[in-house]
Amino acid sequence: MERVACSAASLAGHLSLGRIIYLYDDNHVSIDGSTDLAFTEDRAARFEAYGWHVQKIEDGNDVEAVDSAVRAAKADPRPSLICVRTIIGYGAPKKQGTSKAHGEPLGDEELNAAKQNLGWPLEPRFLIPGEVLEFYREAVEKGREREFDWKMRLDAYKQIHPALGVELQRRLNGALPDGWDSDLPTFPADEKGLATRASSGKVLDALSAKLPELLGGSADLTPSNNTKFAESGDFQKDNPTGRYLRFGVREHAMGAALNGLNLYGAVIAYGGTFLIFSDYMKPAIRIAAISHAPTIFVFTHDSVGLGEDGPTHQPIEHLAALRAVPNLVTIRPADANEVAEAWKFAIQRRDGPTALALTRQAVPTLAIGPFVKLSQGAYVLKDFGDSPKLILMASGSEVSLIYTAAQRLFAEGIETRVVSFPSWELFEKQDEAYQESVLPKNIIARLAVEAGATLGWERYAKAMIGLDHYGASAPYKVIFENFGFTVENVVARAKKLI
Amino acid sequence: MERVACSAASLAGHLSLGRIIYLYDDNHVSIDGSTDLAFTEDRAARFEAYGWHVQKIEDGNDVEAVDSAVRAAKADPRPSLICVRTIIGYGAPKKQGTSKAHGEPLGDEELNAAKQNLGWPLEPRFLIPGEVLEFYREAVEKGREREFDWKMRLDAYKQIHPALGVELQRRLNGALPDGWDSDLPTFPADEKGLATRASSGKVLDALSAKLPELLGGSADLTPSNNTKFAESGDFQKDNPTGRYLRFGVREHAMGAALNGLNLYGAVIAYGGTFLIFSDYMKPAIRIAAISHAPTIFVFTHDSVGLGEDGPTHQPIEHLAALRAVPNLVTIRPADANEVAEAWKFAIQRRDGPTALALTRQAVPTLAIGPFVKLSQGAYVLKDFGDSPKLILMASGSEVSLIYTAAQRLFAEGIETRVVSFPSWELFEKQDEAYQESVLPKNIIARLAVEAGATLGWERYAKAMIGLDHYGASAPYKVIFENFGFTVENVVARAKKLI
Repeated sequence: MERVACSAASLAGHLSLGRIIYLYDDNHVSIDGSTDLAFTEDRAARFEAYGWHVQKIEDGNDVEAVDSAVRAAKADPRPSLICVRTIIGYGAPKKQGTSKAHGEPLGDEELNAAKQNLGWPLEPRFLIPGEVLEFYREAVEKGREREFDWKMRLDAYKQIHPALGVELQRRLNGALPDGWDSDLPTFPADEKGLATRASSGKVLDALSAKLPELLGGSADLTPSNNTKFAESGDFQKDNPTGRYLRFGVREHAMGAALNGLNLYGAVIAYGGTFLIFSDYMKPAIRIAAISHAPTIFVFTHDSVGLGEDGPTHQPIEHLAALRAVPNLVTIRPADANEVAEAWKFAIQRRDGPTALALTRQAVPTLAIGPFVKLSQGAYVLKDFGDSPKLILMASGSEVSLIYTAAQRLFAEGIETRVVSFPSWELFEKQDEAYQESVLPKNIIARLAVEAGATLGWERYAKAMIGLDHYGASAPYKVIFENFGFTVENVVARAKKLI
Repeated sequence: MERVACSAASLAGHLSLGRIIYLYDDNHVSIDGSTDLAFTEDRAARFEAYGWHVQKIEDGNDVEAVDSAVRAAKADPRPSLICVRTIIGYGAPKKQGTSKAHGEPLGDEELNAAKQNLGWPLEPRFLIPGEVLEFYREAVEKGREREFDWKMRLDAYKQIHPALGVELQRRLNGALPDGWDSDLPTFPADEKGLATRASSGKVLDALSAKLPELLGGSADLTPSNNTKFAESGDFQKDNPTGRYLRFGVREHAMGAALNGLNLYGAVIAYGGTFLIFSDYMKPAIRIAAISHAPTIFVFTHDSVGLGEDGPTHQPIEHLAALRAVPNLVTIRPADANEVAEAWKFAIQRRDGPTALALTRQAVPTLAIGPFVKLSQGAYVLKDFGDSPKLILMASGSEVSLIYTAAQRLFAEGIETRVVSFPSWELFEKQDEAYQESVLPKNIIARLAVEAGATLGWERYAKAMIGLDHYGASAPYKVIFENFGFTVENVVARAKKLI
């Protein structure tokens, strides 16, 4: 029933991932009771429609039948579903075949009766018969042998193909090659600038040329996410060396697949969609964070700045929601140079996922270039004056706005600090001395500006210009103006603080 | 491809919702390009597996064929899929049949060429031929006639069945019956107490007896969510008067269906799952909020207090994520009496959704009874001393904890205010005077305690005891103790603030 399983099965069928074998424990029971309450479709026919090889076994206790079905599944080039009719709580006289055998312990009486029904000794409570133990322990020896065989093959490979062997070992180790970031583009200051999704595309081109293990895809938003690098071919069933994955409109399955790839290792896998659709894949983002999977989530169209698509497509609460996820690092870069640094961070992070929030619309390239301190989460972009009495802070597309506002304030005699704040999580990891150097306690007049929910900015700022309501459909300049993301409003709000 | 559509179709097939007709605009193109890139399953066969009536039309421009398929669909008792092969951008010489016809405007040249290909005048740019206008305008008159017929039938019904007529009109108006909340249970103070999911079940029993329009369900967690009231029968294809919906493991489809029911009107629809699984239905929660649908989301197992199921089932960031959604009211009641008030609020709310966060574990019933001011979002539960210098605030299961801590602090001479804080959104709606009366600006020593992410509590408190990391699998008392949710820790942290 679970939808991510449906999406994954559809994709596996499309790609003909023949090594997948599902054993469907078809016990006709879910937590509410009989599956007939909610789930009466023809599951076997559905998987056939996905392009799967499907088999049915009428009695799950028939070990020979299961074994021969698994053999047939292995022999078939398609992914395989084996529907195995089982009885949950088999042998327990009262709970067998009911949801009680799923949701609660059997209890002593029922357990003893089940053991008697199955001809099993009542004591000891946990009994592993010698021959069973022996059978399973064989797996240890078999595993050792297989590992040895594999290592021998790897060594042989390394001798025959020394360069490839070194490369393979590097990727298995998850180490980056020397100079992997040497060709990362730097972007000159430019008032017109470019969308951070576009600079992200350029950075990806540079990274992919140096990192053959980099692969990625999009949930059917490739031209919008700028996730397809120049040299990628499509990964398809007839092209397994392709480095670009066409996930289709399957965000959750995409997230799950990326996590699987990254946990398997030897690759660095990223995927793109709109920030609003992070909602569809939130469970996979959380699994990445909890499992320390270094998945890179590319979320473009990161605010009301996406314009005409309107409120259903405009993220509001999403940055706050991502920031609340433990062990996820969320980065919203201000310009092209911060984008390059954000990718650099994400590629190097090995113990958890990174989410990049990128604009649809063009943003100026700021005159910071090599001074970008993105990995510290927040940094002083510029002090207007020697002893600022006011801090303006922002992330992403709003950094250039506060920069202009600070110029205006300084022209009026108000010394102002401009802080670019791309990542809360990275700033929280800095020591107190650094944090104090960026946000000194004695400057209490602090205004945060971000085109999203204000929730949480209280941590750093006294006042916020944000969006605690839904967006609107209009050209982005009109939207920003109407929602108070203007130099005039920032200046006015800032003045009230001092 | 979209998974919520798959889940909804599976459920519609199960319930044999014969009035549903999907016209599948099968143009073989998605944003990335050909659907062959990612989506090659047999869609028709999949829907047949769901138990749908399926038809195929080879040429979407064949109006007669479409019309006769719709007639056949209406005649069939099952839900119907009509796969209509179409060509996107039909007639446009360069963009026809490509994703360019989806993602970007045709442009003048291509548009003119398309018009020429289709024998259509180039000017005016927007042309509605007279006969087309006339044909569509007939719908206005037809609609008037149908509305008139319907009103006549309604009036006749009201005359023949006066009492039922009044009742029907009440429900259509969305008005609550007199005395609908008169039998709501009140709970005496009780140290042992009960889980708020359990008191929620009792409240539902009382509400359902007075509100025949109340219906609900669960995503296959009925025995855990306590969402099935005593007198509900299952809504199934052979029992359309049932008031309990078996949604199966389909959270997103459940949320979408609840929204549809509530927007249609004449019913009040709620649905339950674990709070962690709110992630699976977040898009539907957002749609409820943006559409002003008064859906009631019942989220049980609302913290690490759920115990042994462990980190994958323990919500951490979820309260913060819900609070960031504009127009969603999130309520985490502290005890059984707050639960009753929370339901009362949710039932009366007509302009947006309400999320209830309820415990798995028992919580004491506090000695507040009729003093509950839940609808104000936060209120003074008790002042220990005449002029408190410290405020402890908490929601849900942590309220009884801070209450005990306040007793301890008072015994040590520290006058302390205890604030129960079930809902941020409701508190934000109060006037400044009320807010000041609960959280006076001159009391700056304020500690918030909640078994979830601390993000955002800075708005109200100077320090927080929360969880900015994942949970653990253990009995809940062990978990709370290990994560600092103890009287000792609250007392110690509070003392540091003063």
